[in-house]
Amino acid sequence: MDRLIDAIAATDNPSIVGLDPTPALLPEPLLEPVRSVQGVARARALAESYLKFNTAIIDAITGIVPAVKPQIAMYEALGVAGVETYVRTTEYAQQHGLYVLGDVKRGDIGSTAAAYAAHLSGMPVVGSFSEESSQESIDRKDGAEKTAEKTTGVIDLWHEDAVTVNPYLGVDGILPFVEAASATDKDIFVLVRTSNPSSSQLQTLNAEGKAVADHVGDLVEQWGSETQGSFGYSRVGAVVGATHPREGARLRESMPHTFFLVPGFGAQGGSAKDVASMFDASGSGAIVNSSRGIIGAWKKGAQAHDADAGTVEEALDIVGRSARLAALAMRDSITKELKERNDH
Amino acid sequence: MDRLIDAIAATDNPSIVGLDPTPALLPEPLLEPVRSVQGVARARALAESYLKFNTAIIDAITGIVPAVKPQIAMYEALGVAGVETYVRTTEYAQQHGLYVLGDVKRGDIGSTAAAYAAHLSGMPVVGSFSEESSQESIDRKDGAEKTAEKTTGVIDLWHEDAVTVNPYLGVDGILPFVEAASATDKDIFVLVRTSNPSSSQLQTLNAEGKAVADHVGDLVEQWGSETQGSFGYSRVGAVVGATHPREGARLRESMPHTFFLVPGFGAQGGSAKDVASMFDASGSGAIVNSSRGIIGAWKKGAQAHDADAGTVEEALDIVGRSARLAALAMRDSITKELKERNDH
Repeated sequence: MDRLIDAIAATDNPSIVGLDPTPALLPEPLLEPVRSVQGVARARALAESYLKFNTAIIDAITGIVPAVKPQIAMYEALGVAGVETYVRTTEYAQQHGLYVLGDVKRGDIGSTAAAYAAHLSGMPVVGSFSEESSQESIDRKDGAEKTAEKTTGVIDLWHEDAVTVNPYLGVDGILPFVEAASATDKDIFVLVRTSNPSSSQLQTLNAEGKAVADHVGDLVEQWGSETQGSFGYSRVGAVVGATHPREGARLRESMPHTFFLVPGFGAQGGSAKDVASMFDASGSGAIVNSSRGIIGAWKKGAQAHDADAGTVEEALDIVGRSARLAALAMRDSITKELKERNDH
Repeated sequence: MDRLIDAIAATDNPSIVGLDPTPALLPEPLLEPVRSVQGVARARALAESYLKFNTAIIDAITGIVPAVKPQIAMYEALGVAGVETYVRTTEYAQQHGLYVLGDVKRGDIGSTAAAYAAHLSGMPVVGSFSEESSQESIDRKDGAEKTAEKTTGVIDLWHEDAVTVNPYLGVDGILPFVEAASATDKDIFVLVRTSNPSSSQLQTLNAEGKAVADHVGDLVEQWGSETQGSFGYSRVGAVVGATHPREGARLRESMPHTFFLVPGFGAQGGSAKDVASMFDASGSGAIVNSSRGIIGAWKKGAQAHDADAGTVEEALDIVGRSARLAALAMRDSITKELKERNDH
């Protein structure tokens, strides 16, 4: 988790921008080329518009935020073309120095979990050629990729620094990810207490004296125990929704070596005060996600009409500037809250 | 679930073939072109070999089995090129009349779950043009796709008849899938009791008098209750591992309207006797998955050496014939067990 914590310190900003495009979040000039084609071509056109939208936002927030969190579901909704935009987005974000947390919520067993872990560890080795990893670095252009290969000897196909993982299958589903993360200096975030209303159907069932989510919390601490970095946090983080501030504070206590990803800020109802309880006493230990609040900020601004009525370039300029302002406001509201809490 | 049950009846075979390729399952002639290229091109080459492997198996088992279950993790391990092979595989299988159960184990909340549900419901609508759905059918060639569009007005990008879904987030994560399935005459299968050893870390925790998996079972019955088909089974199925026959029998009793997908047969240790308890009294109510036992059957056959030493065509021929024989043997062992149980 050290790389993420360093990136947060460098920007003085414990927040992460969710890159979750939907048609409703795109300005009109990006939708026009989509409507003019039919069938599978329409999905491809929308995927291209998503990429333009994402790159404008990444350009605008680079240097202000430490990390982005693309939600792969939004891209899978467009089939293969969408997945390609996902990967081009993660690659572009990494090239801009952003830590990329792929919100993929994968989870499976045994050899299948190992295959999913290729999100972090690169494509599976074919045969057993000892020269394989050194040969990989031939014929590659991108500097960042070359560095990753030199370090790890893998073919990185997803350009993610971390992924989210579902715990329902137990440690069999987690261990391959932990191993992949350790081998490549990356991280994972396990769903513990999600921000949605019906999360309580399973997560707060009282099991043998405590909530299922608390059991998962204990497991997460245990799964990460061998991977603590220089700040005391392991490579196995937890997803804890901003909409559960009291449970979050309790989990913060019981999971001292686990870094939290906190979704649910803004649009889903979580306030800066709510998320403050997820941080440790030194103001570290968590990163707060906002998606619509940042990437959809242009729609609430005075220039929303201009974005819809102008050219693609004008629209992307408004989208980017609005995202930048919203990211700055989010940073300030969270850091102010953490500072006030510390002054008490 | 009616379409799946009809397909099982038509083939008299309650089994499903897991299309989960790995490099280790490919015969040598399919690996050679992979080794001769480097970097991302290697992932593309392997994805092409997976497609050849899958099409040979689909050709060989068509008419014998009712359904296939590609595990998307194996394809994601190859990045975008792998996902493309996944989609070409599902499309090819549907064109051969097979019911395609996409083993994607997706699950998320709210708008994100709705995006994942596009696996079933097609790409999201852009804008609100009432003529949109009728226009979609222009400019499409494939007959099967045209039929799907005529019925549902969607652009089907994934060619799945059902997907697996993770329940950890509660009904928010499930409802969009149920709605998508209902709108498109498709199904979902929710993880209830998985076949892996550590599944008990969460799934058998005793919560308020019963195991977490039993709570999930109750929820699954409830989530499907509005969608029962003509055989009494709803569109919301359950994944129940063959490695837990006693729990499976109990869940069979407590979930009378839920069709079971039973993984863990063969390679993972489940026998025909173990899976028999997952079926209802009339021998329906479940479908049993085997992956390696079918697609890796060629490696255990007398011709394994020939497959490795011959041409691509010879290798694919052996792979296909071995898969066909293994699928017939699996069918016979399960139907024999069910018949014996009924004769008692």
